[in-house]
Amino acid sequence: MADFWQETAGGVTVPRGFRAAAVRCGIRQAEADDLGLLLCETQGTAAATFTTNRVAAAPVRWSRQTLEQGRVRAAVANSGNANACTGERGWRDVEATARAAADALGLEPANFLIASTGIIGRYLPVEKLLEGLPRAASLLDGSIEAGDRFARAILTTDTRVKQVALRCPLGAGAIALGGATKGAGMIAPGMATTLTFLTTDARAGRTLLQDTLRRAIDRTYNRISIDGHMSTNDTALLLASGLADAPAIESGTEAARRFEAALTELCGRLAVQIVADGEGATRLVRIDVVNAPTERQAVAVGRAIADSPLCKCALHSGDPNWGRFVSAAGYACPALEEARARLFIGDKLAYAAGAPADTPEAELAAAMAGKQVVLRLDLGLGAASATVWTCDLSKEYVAINADYHT
Amino acid sequence: MADFWQETAGGVTVPRGFRAAAVRCGIRQAEADDLGLLLCETQGTAAATFTTNRVAAAPVRWSRQTLEQGRVRAAVANSGNANACTGERGWRDVEATARAAADALGLEPANFLIASTGIIGRYLPVEKLLEGLPRAASLLDGSIEAGDRFARAILTTDTRVKQVALRCPLGAGAIALGGATKGAGMIAPGMATTLTFLTTDARAGRTLLQDTLRRAIDRTYNRISIDGHMSTNDTALLLASGLADAPAIESGTEAARRFEAALTELCGRLAVQIVADGEGATRLVRIDVVNAPTERQAVAVGRAIADSPLCKCALHSGDPNWGRFVSAAGYACPALEEARARLFIGDKLAYAAGAPADTPEAELAAAMAGKQVVLRLDLGLGAASATVWTCDLSKEYVAINADYHT
Repeated sequence: MADFWQETAGGVTVPRGFRAAAVRCGIRQAEADDLGLLLCETQGTAAATFTTNRVAAAPVRWSRQTLEQGRVRAAVANSGNANACTGERGWRDVEATARAAADALGLEPANFLIASTGIIGRYLPVEKLLEGLPRAASLLDGSIEAGDRFARAILTTDTRVKQVALRCPLGAGAIALGGATKGAGMIAPGMATTLTFLTTDARAGRTLLQDTLRRAIDRTYNRISIDGHMSTNDTALLLASGLADAPAIESGTEAARRFEAALTELCGRLAVQIVADGEGATRLVRIDVVNAPTERQAVAVGRAIADSPLCKCALHSGDPNWGRFVSAAGYACPALEEARARLFIGDKLAYAAGAPADTPEAELAAAMAGKQVVLRLDLGLGAASATVWTCDLSKEYVAINADYHT
Repeated sequence: MADFWQETAGGVTVPRGFRAAAVRCGIRQAEADDLGLLLCETQGTAAATFTTNRVAAAPVRWSRQTLEQGRVRAAVANSGNANACTGERGWRDVEATARAAADALGLEPANFLIASTGIIGRYLPVEKLLEGLPRAASLLDGSIEAGDRFARAILTTDTRVKQVALRCPLGAGAIALGGATKGAGMIAPGMATTLTFLTTDARAGRTLLQDTLRRAIDRTYNRISIDGHMSTNDTALLLASGLADAPAIESGTEAARRFEAALTELCGRLAVQIVADGEGATRLVRIDVVNAPTERQAVAVGRAIADSPLCKCALHSGDPNWGRFVSAAGYACPALEEARARLFIGDKLAYAAGAPADTPEAELAAAMAGKQVVLRLDLGLGAASATVWTCDLSKEYVAINADYHT
């Protein structure tokens, strides 16, 4: 399918019917906003995916519950504290947050998805949230700037705001999609990742929305890894206002396929922004695994390379020590045959027929020298493929994560 | 079973019937021996385990073959080049090495296990090995010093020689066991690990020896991880000379149980030495997972913590950011229930009933401050347990592995 979407400035407030706000309530030590509020003006439809970690944060458990009730139309997000591993008290804190948000906006607690990110195992200073929510509610605004402030308030160790918006013709009309997301550590999503807020003014039923979101996340967020550590708080929310000047999207139609393609593009762009801003990262790495026996094995091979500290150190120094990539594939793919596999760094062949290729090492080194590196592993076994994104491992990652807690 | 073994100085040459040697043949750039030779004076029995990586080095493929032929009684080991991903030429190089070793000792190529470690994807400078082998053969010696030199010749980024020897009463007599091993990166064994040479003067049949070795490796080497990256060259060899003053060990007897206990102890001590000398490591970490539903899940939980860069960075700084350990357990154990799990750092309770324990943070920090840290995760789900060993992740690890190739 050719690209039919067009990128436009802004994020979650680009689609019709959304307002956002952010305030500083003092949960993070940094002088930065740490509480975001996102509201859909209509009772549209919502879909979400969450971490598959058995240790799920209180806000994740709350949000699973409200999602099932079918009336989610707003989100409260805080950075600086994950409210994970906090037992009964964590649950009471999330209930209190939802009640306060509902009071501030004249809605019900069940209308809210709650998402938190930050340190695990510390009780939430909930009184700060309760104080900040009415202020945030009074600032709700549909401007691009408001969306930008919302995107900024969910960041932790990120160094950049991460948002994207797309406009797409659909049927006789057009829709818009917007999104904001965050990294930058504990990124190895098993279902969704971290905090991701997606909006659209498309009109679509819950089932279609949920199915489409699940597939889009599976092909994008579930194929990035910064450090192989799946978070307790991963949450991806998609809110659809239904206010676009376009017909409702019905399952199995061309419109549904276009909507899925655009949503996947949106998620893909956001996910890549996360990896590009990985903790301590200096290079963005795309790993294309092709001609695999199954898509699952292609993903497993890409992920093994993405998660290996040895591969990531080679990527950091730009050293074409390609044996590390091949050996990672060797333990990730039980069907691998050395005689059939080929590894390219950029467009340079490094390894084929079980032995080093003739490419001069200087050319391989040049292919690893840029800010973006592409590895292409052709398994020569089948017709499936997958792309996994990662970043390098630097001393800065160690510095950030050895000191994050105190 | 109470400890019945006694540690003694030395390594592979402590049991009766073994001679060792090492020379410098110039494969490594360092001014150090890089070729080791180990000989059993009798045609005793041998057992071995190898990497399960589908990308297996030429020496691993050779050694699997000679092991099947049942006449292994000597080993050639080199550091500085892994002879992996080297295709047909790599295979010819290993054949030439075995022939040269056989000529130098008046044996057959099939008597030799070959083991290599070092950079992947570079052709072996085989002429250097062929030149060095007769020199090594002429130096073969049964002294403790010769065993020490052998253990030194197999090192790569290791900072310390790793060897152990045990003496054990057995039946009416006694046996000895010795071992030498190496680290220090690409350590996440899936079957055996890295290069490990074990000797004993016990008398035992091939099947008993192989079964015993497999179980011992599974509980020791297969439960350590430095960086989660399984090597292409992992090899563990056990040679039994049969020269001890003790009866032959028969399967199912008390002697067989004692032999297995002693061999497991030997392997465990060697494996822990590897982790303690992990690349850039400053702390040795023991992860005890207890009351798990199955041993497999206990190992998976321990390994998830051991392989998480986030956990390893917290261990590096000595910061009791225990949410990282609990969250790793949460993605590794599908049966985990927060209400039942408890985490101890040293003997201090950090987390219980899904929430932070009352232990003051200063006490948790003190429990992480030493050179050895013990994490104990009680899953409260069953009766199985496992111990996994790892080390911390430091900037030094990145420095070592960003610069290893060139």
